[in-house]
Amino acid sequence: MSDKITAVDLRILKLLAKNARLTYKELAELLGTTRQRISRRMNRLEQNGVILKYTVIPNYDALGYIHVILGVTVRPDVDVGELIATLKEDENVKIIQRALGSHNLVLHIIGPKDMRELEKIIAEVTKKIPGIEHLDITFVTETVKFEAL
Amino acid sequence: MSDKITAVDLRILKLLAKNARLTYKELAELLGTTRQRISRRMNRLEQNGVILKYTVIPNYDALGYIHVILGVTVRPDVDVGELIATLKEDENVKIIQRALGSHNLVLHIIGPKDMRELEKIIAEVTKKIPGIEHLDITFVTETVKFEAL
Repeated sequence: MSDKITAVDLRILKLLAKNARLTYKELAELLGTTRQRISRRMNRLEQNGVILKYTVIPNYDALGYIHVILGVTVRPDVDVGELIATLKEDENVKIIQRALGSHNLVLHIIGPKDMRELEKIIAEVTKKIPGIEHLDITFVTETVKFEAL
Repeated sequence: MSDKITAVDLRILKLLAKNARLTYKELAELLGTTRQRISRRMNRLEQNGVILKYTVIPNYDALGYIHVILGVTVRPDVDVGELIATLKEDENVKIIQRALGSHNLVLHIIGPKDMRELEKIIAEVTKKIPGIEHLDITFVTETVKFEAL
């Protein structure tokens, strides 16, 4: 990641955070530049890994799912990197964040509303995590605000 | 939200979760349908609030920010709805999720790497929350996986 983030990059990112479907043309008009320049900067941000993904934030409840966040604290001797490699393959684990502080690992599961099914999925995921010291389970009932930047 | 989610809606959503910048044309080709049909379904999903937002998931570290998650547990007598209305106006609070379980409220702050500045921001946010029973502070060091669906 050798390229420096420019002021224009940040402005592009802030616009995309509000609406990732803005076209090159729309972004160029909003920022008073050319489509070519926008597309070049975005390609670079994608290649450098500054942009991890363009995605949709859905209302899981409306889709019939439950959104569960697992805040995991493991013992200091656990190899979190190794653990993440295993969890990455689990299709029930949709979001994985490595962390410091109260939790070492934040996992998001998008599961069925059937609580017995959900319990089974959570048990299967946590079984893969050795040395859990503490586990916080939080059920998101509504995403009220979501601004990436 | 009177419309039923169809199988086509779910397929559109899963494609957009992978890449929210897919055009109507690309989606139509991938799903063997017409652009008109895709655009009509997406408009409906947006209007019904099934799609909350199209956004970008950035690498905050590369942008010079720290990504902090506050897991807040409040006393049972606290009016969480009222609390959310206040926090929504706070531009330091980027994500707000209402929840059940370990935490009643999940807040995300995208702050500066200067820890004294960050401490001030966290203190200002938590000062607005009456009746905190427990507060988990987690610093995300890396988003390893992000699949919305």
